[in-house]
Amino acid sequence: MRDDNCIFCKLANGDIPTNAIYEDDEFKVILDASPATRGHALILPKNHFANIYEVDDATAAKILPLAKKVATHMTEKLGCDGFNILQNNGEAAGQTVFHLHVHLIPRWNGGKDILNWSHEEFSDDEMKNICDTLKMN
Amino acid sequence: MRDDNCIFCKLANGDIPTNAIYEDDEFKVILDASPATRGHALILPKNHFANIYEVDDATAAKILPLAKKVATHMTEKLGCDGFNILQNNGEAAGQTVFHLHVHLIPRWNGGKDILNWSHEEFSDDEMKNICDTLKMN
Repeated sequence: MRDDNCIFCKLANGDIPTNAIYEDDEFKVILDASPATRGHALILPKNHFANIYEVDDATAAKILPLAKKVATHMTEKLGCDGFNILQNNGEAAGQTVFHLHVHLIPRWNGGKDILNWSHEEFSDDEMKNICDTLKMN
Repeated sequence: MRDDNCIFCKLANGDIPTNAIYEDDEFKVILDASPATRGHALILPKNHFANIYEVDDATAAKILPLAKKVATHMTEKLGCDGFNILQNNGEAAGQTVFHLHVHLIPRWNGGKDILNWSHEEFSDDEMKNICDTLKMN
């Protein structure tokens, strides 16, 4: 379940030294080497999955409880005012390393913007059409 | 487990009509009324939790497998090139409704930027100090 050409496989499994803050049998949490804010960390599964589409449900189920645990600890230790939990899939979404990872980004009041969240306008009919296209049940 | 003053409790539990694309006993997935991109959806738990710090582990465990299922379906239906999965906690992190929710944001090659991800510089010593502060095990 490892990809020998994947840098995050090497980081998660100890082949390359990291600033690790948490480790268990399936995950390592490390400081991002290019942090958006102080303490910005990454949850890395030790097994290789390129993205959310590839990860198995059992592994996926463990990630948010771990994110909660680590974010709670980081918030206490850093005294931050908020937290973004972010997972990007595909270059179009800003993913640069194709090993599933979850960003844990501490935020402070008055800090820089990270989300550039302009809205797109859709008419009520367009929204209904999109809804009809996507309806699952 | 509901908060009568919470708009997302009302949306998740059917008191206010929504463009819903998925529903089960514990979650509703609706189109965001102010979408960042076409198809931008929100996973809402039916029970009220303000944020990641408050959600119980059993509920948290169900969210990423559901995000995977819905993102896979949306990617197929919309033909998008990527996907952001984002969960904001606290005003400092861009949370505007204080009922836990997860953004599912389809992305296309050549689309606008959503993440404004300038990096902060920390020396190796600073990174070690941050790591020592945050180390959990």
